[in-house]
Amino acid sequence: MAHYHKPDQQTLLALKDIANRLRINSIKATTAAGSGHPTSCCSAAEIMSVLFFHTMKYKALDPRHPCNDRFVLSKGHAAPILYAVWAEAGFLKESDLLNLRKLDSILEGHPVPRQEFVDVATGSLGQGLGAACGMAYTGKYFDKASYRVYCLLGDGELSEGSVWEAMAFASHYKLDNLVAIFDINRLGQSDPTPLQHQMDKYKKRCEAFGWNAIVVEDGHSLEKLCKAFSEAQQQPTVIIAKTFKGKGISGAEDKLSWHGKPLPKEMADSITKDLEKQIHNTNKKLCPLAPEEDAPAVNIKNIKMPSPSNYKLGEKVATRKAYGIALKKLGHANNRVIAMDGDTKNSTFSEMFKNEHPNRFVECYIAEQNMVSIAVGCATRDRTVAFASTFAAFFTRAYDQIRMAAISESNINLVGSHCGVSIGEDGPSQMALEDLAIFRAIPTATVFYPSDGVSTEKAVELAANTKGICFIRTSRPDNAIIYKNSEEFQIGHAKVVKQNKNDQVTVIGAGVTLHEANAAAEQLATENIFIRVIDPFTIKPLDADKIIESAKATKGRIITVEDHYYEGGLGEAVLSAVAKESGITVHLMAVSGVPRSGKPAELLKMFQIDKEAIVNKVKKVISITENTI
Amino acid sequence: MAHYHKPDQQTLLALKDIANRLRINSIKATTAAGSGHPTSCCSAAEIMSVLFFHTMKYKALDPRHPCNDRFVLSKGHAAPILYAVWAEAGFLKESDLLNLRKLDSILEGHPVPRQEFVDVATGSLGQGLGAACGMAYTGKYFDKASYRVYCLLGDGELSEGSVWEAMAFASHYKLDNLVAIFDINRLGQSDPTPLQHQMDKYKKRCEAFGWNAIVVEDGHSLEKLCKAFSEAQQQPTVIIAKTFKGKGISGAEDKLSWHGKPLPKEMADSITKDLEKQIHNTNKKLCPLAPEEDAPAVNIKNIKMPSPSNYKLGEKVATRKAYGIALKKLGHANNRVIAMDGDTKNSTFSEMFKNEHPNRFVECYIAEQNMVSIAVGCATRDRTVAFASTFAAFFTRAYDQIRMAAISESNINLVGSHCGVSIGEDGPSQMALEDLAIFRAIPTATVFYPSDGVSTEKAVELAANTKGICFIRTSRPDNAIIYKNSEEFQIGHAKVVKQNKNDQVTVIGAGVTLHEANAAAEQLATENIFIRVIDPFTIKPLDADKIIESAKATKGRIITVEDHYYEGGLGEAVLSAVAKESGITVHLMAVSGVPRSGKPAELLKMFQIDKEAIVNKVKKVISITENTI
Repeated sequence: MAHYHKPDQQTLLALKDIANRLRINSIKATTAAGSGHPTSCCSAAEIMSVLFFHTMKYKALDPRHPCNDRFVLSKGHAAPILYAVWAEAGFLKESDLLNLRKLDSILEGHPVPRQEFVDVATGSLGQGLGAACGMAYTGKYFDKASYRVYCLLGDGELSEGSVWEAMAFASHYKLDNLVAIFDINRLGQSDPTPLQHQMDKYKKRCEAFGWNAIVVEDGHSLEKLCKAFSEAQQQPTVIIAKTFKGKGISGAEDKLSWHGKPLPKEMADSITKDLEKQIHNTNKKLCPLAPEEDAPAVNIKNIKMPSPSNYKLGEKVATRKAYGIALKKLGHANNRVIAMDGDTKNSTFSEMFKNEHPNRFVECYIAEQNMVSIAVGCATRDRTVAFASTFAAFFTRAYDQIRMAAISESNINLVGSHCGVSIGEDGPSQMALEDLAIFRAIPTATVFYPSDGVSTEKAVELAANTKGICFIRTSRPDNAIIYKNSEEFQIGHAKVVKQNKNDQVTVIGAGVTLHEANAAAEQLATENIFIRVIDPFTIKPLDADKIIESAKATKGRIITVEDHYYEGGLGEAVLSAVAKESGITVHLMAVSGVPRSGKPAELLKMFQIDKEAIVNKVKKVISITENTI
Repeated sequence: MAHYHKPDQQTLLALKDIANRLRINSIKATTAAGSGHPTSCCSAAEIMSVLFFHTMKYKALDPRHPCNDRFVLSKGHAAPILYAVWAEAGFLKESDLLNLRKLDSILEGHPVPRQEFVDVATGSLGQGLGAACGMAYTGKYFDKASYRVYCLLGDGELSEGSVWEAMAFASHYKLDNLVAIFDINRLGQSDPTPLQHQMDKYKKRCEAFGWNAIVVEDGHSLEKLCKAFSEAQQQPTVIIAKTFKGKGISGAEDKLSWHGKPLPKEMADSITKDLEKQIHNTNKKLCPLAPEEDAPAVNIKNIKMPSPSNYKLGEKVATRKAYGIALKKLGHANNRVIAMDGDTKNSTFSEMFKNEHPNRFVECYIAEQNMVSIAVGCATRDRTVAFASTFAAFFTRAYDQIRMAAISESNINLVGSHCGVSIGEDGPSQMALEDLAIFRAIPTATVFYPSDGVSTEKAVELAANTKGICFIRTSRPDNAIIYKNSEEFQIGHAKVVKQNKNDQVTVIGAGVTLHEANAAAEQLATENIFIRVIDPFTIKPLDADKIIESAKATKGRIITVEDHYYEGGLGEAVLSAVAKESGITVHLMAVSGVPRSGKPAELLKMFQIDKEAIVNKVKKVISITENTI
């Protein structure tokens, strides 16, 4: 550990002045906006001053430089003080701060990466530390660089379990380049926090989770904070700072009723005058220290599979296994492809990647929220291409993290196995039946639902090169390879799998139901009934043109069949795609009601999404339409 | 604390025999099923034996009796040993155990409440303790009864943050009637757990979270377990038992590769023979102790508002506030109506309930996953009618818990405020834009989306009396009361808000967009264009009949407009509802892309879901159709 030099008095005064200017700007901005959280900013004024103007190393005019120390404001509602910091550092204009929360300003109510100094959006509490862990893991193990990662958390959000998932992760992986700061200002939104100012209890929890915990009994003391940060050189370290909400705002300090309220204009004027009077205007100008320039150059563009897929037509392979095979290969194309899993790697087959590229696999254990946050953190500043896998059902656990990842403009790839009732005996808790719905509702998402090994391999390659959240839905059962290895796939381009000039109905399936549809087509053909079978490949975007074209060629009749609930899945995606067309009728086949344990084939039959059900539906649809014509 | 009497030797032998019989039955059942987790059962054999045949008090033939001690198997994949316990207790036939995981058996792969001895489904890890906390809270504070709550967790799932949310909750509320048992068998699914057998680290974490932690160094010692359970009389207590996965299965014990694998037939035969040889067949028959019969009778049926709503037509009130007013009133109708919140009670207005009924309000702090689990636990055995509220966006945090609540056949009411871009300045992290999609995809869900105070009040009353998961979506802006207090509302019954014989388009809106539609109707009327405006009231189920009828009366034209993303919301629900009709075209208006901060009106305009956008869309739809006719 470096020997600690107490900062000189001028430095301390300058830091104090900065803290007060941050307060002033936070108050002015929120009062101008008419909303926001000045009191949550004020508790952290000294912390932010010391962090940004004494401790952290970064280029103030190039906030996203790969060598910079990282900072994550997990308590995102304190955004105004972050903006004030970057004005103080010279990156923002001070006058811009008064545009806080306006439609045409980038200074939103909570941090978003439209701001160059923000890597991950925050505002849903308890998510910052997981992302910071991903950045620190990347810094230590992938970049092997000097940059450090700082994350400021509020005490309210310490009730979120995701924080403790991240705490456990950080100590398990010995992230000694990670520093968390707990701003213990005692007050939540509507009540005091459960532990209020019991600093010893926080310390015990952090130490029990394997962290070096330093309590700063006066979290408004610049000197104490400087000292504490200097000690953060081993293990992951947490600075637990006892602070007061609204510190510096007489009348609001340490008072419950002031959460999320801007000061009324006169009060703001009077407080800012008070604070201005306290400013020493020392001549000392504090500038951030320059970072070590030791983060390697990284190129994650245009990652291509080193060789084509290698399957035989008709060979049976589960798409979950094809995922493992594909990712293992892709790992050879670019050494920034990384993978993580939540202790299901022998089910999702991500272990095939681990076995080949052990140093690029991160076991996240059974903590799916944190796994997604780790992926988001690892993918910031384009340092890695992250693939995170678990059972598709368990991505529901991380849906808030996924939602925020979209707001973070994150480029991550999530791969969910064991979709639908076709997993069989394990029963409904393990069956993903709402995953298409939740991923479709992510605005930046691309949703792949490959139906064989060849298309799965293509999906993995495409996902690696596609911005936004990519979700790949894989299946448990072994199903036949239906595409040649040379088949080309594109996002938003469906495949016509079976086609005949006498086709009477278009049937759209994916995964197991595509194979059921193929089998149904064969059976129907023996009765001289022909159907066009379509594999959409991606559910979002959906190939509306091809679907409409097929529907028109098959008397306007579409049947969708999916191993998913009715709501929000393939069927409704198709309904949306053809909504503006007249003369097309879509008949949905999907899972209805909570399923149960049973053999896969029994369940496909019970929920009426198997070959036989499709055959019957096709006949019914034809007969209804014929009768009405 | 009661003085501990060491069990006599005969009792210990009998407990040991039971443990081995549980092993035998777990092995036989999973081998017969051809899948399942015998090794995860075997580590817990002694724990289960002592719990069910020495410690717990319950009526073996009436597993859901309100006075029974509760048991939650959080490590749900060990289901076979739970079934073996209930066979041992005489509730199940031993022969039935061999039907494990079969389609026509209730003995599914993971516990579900079709089994009378199961209150909450498990299988998504880390959720049992939260539900157990809800049961313990109910026992201590609402029932004021003697029953105790036991929850068995695996060590793999201790990585889930939700466990630590529950740990914090239990100590904060001093749940001294709650006992957790950690089955520390060292091995996860694909790897050893992060802490393996470091018992001291587990102890520290539990103590730091405020629990009485007892380490049992030999978790297979019946005597040590009996003693430990006898000491669980203060604080919430956790028994941290060092065990071995696959204990008793020579060849699989403490081995990583045996997770989730049934023993091959011959191995199973040989192991069960070995285990049978170890059985002493003591004459001592152990029966569970009878419970104290002190849980009060509870009636939560047919809960009616004590008085009609009290709004004036045109008065402006936010539906979130109307929720608070309604719930406060409903609390007077039945003393089993309870509420909980995640430190947003002054935003969701659940604080109005708290102020009136402080003893029936549970502050869950910022831990939405646990809040939902608490609600589920409180609602088991029909002990309470629980309403849990937070920002609708933050229910995404608990989506796995909500998914599991449906599998648990839970009757809970979730109320999400601050939906959509109409919240304004706080920005996208706080805006629920996927909540309709996620709740629609819950098979047992009823989704209310009331548009004024009167209908909100009715939604609250209906939700209290409706089985399954009820979700009420409330809005932040103040909007006009549009219904008389005497208006009657039913689930699945839409209201025609504006109607004219010359209506040319049906416009369906809800919440803020219903008011925008009304305003659009008024403006269009000045141009002699008339539209029919429909308030669906519930999005699931949706009133397909009325929508189709209206569409037919308006030349087959429907416009949906919603403060939600395009996917899975109101628009797609309407598409599904009219899918089978010909001659109806649905035009969707919704939010596209990640939004931003701004004033509510600015954002409604920017995302084209305001009055003006509706006016333009109506004109466009009319002109398109007229041109094609």
